[in-house]
Amino acid sequence: MHIISYDIQDDRLRTMIAKVLIQQGLYRVQYSVFMGMVDDKSKGILDKQFLRVQKEKKWAPADTIFIIPLHQYSSDHLEIIGTKPDDWDLMNRKLHTLVL
Amino acid sequence: MHIISYDIQDDRLRTMIAKVLIQQGLYRVQYSVFMGMVDDKSKGILDKQFLRVQKEKKWAPADTIFIIPLHQYSSDHLEIIGTKPDDWDLMNRKLHTLVL
Repeated sequence: MHIISYDIQDDRLRTMIAKVLIQQGLYRVQYSVFMGMVDDKSKGILDKQFLRVQKEKKWAPADTIFIIPLHQYSSDHLEIIGTKPDDWDLMNRKLHTLVL
Repeated sequence: MHIISYDIQDDRLRTMIAKVLIQQGLYRVQYSVFMGMVDDKSKGILDKQFLRVQKEKKWAPADTIFIIPLHQYSSDHLEIIGTKPDDWDLMNRKLHTLVL
């Protein structure tokens, strides 16, 4: 499982990245935070898009994307304050199935 | 090491949480994402503040805070697209010192 978060100033670039993350099966768990399984094929597609977006004129010096692979320990100990995202249980069932 | 991210609509509540996270030694690595070591004492202070903020009138139904403890694996394999935050090296030296 991965967690991918971004700080991207430009709306179009942010939307571009959000779109490819969702296309690759990640779930939007917060406005700028996505979670999901990223297999090698997806990682290749994402890396290509991340490289592409950095070359855009509108990519700002302060823009960042964090890609954090999570260990099972993190998934087991994650805490959520507030209401879980709509597709949280679906996401976890799916991840669980993939892990088994 | 922990990663803590939030989606909080109200400016005052968001600032309140950002402030306590920084007070407890976390680094703001993105606008709504913080990283750092959270020991038991800090965790107690944060939990209290998280409970408090949820009781505020301005806490919206969609507001969330994610608290994710990271395994060494995540720290070792984390990737950053773009420029590392200013205090990234300082943070990592500090974390490294604490871990050793």
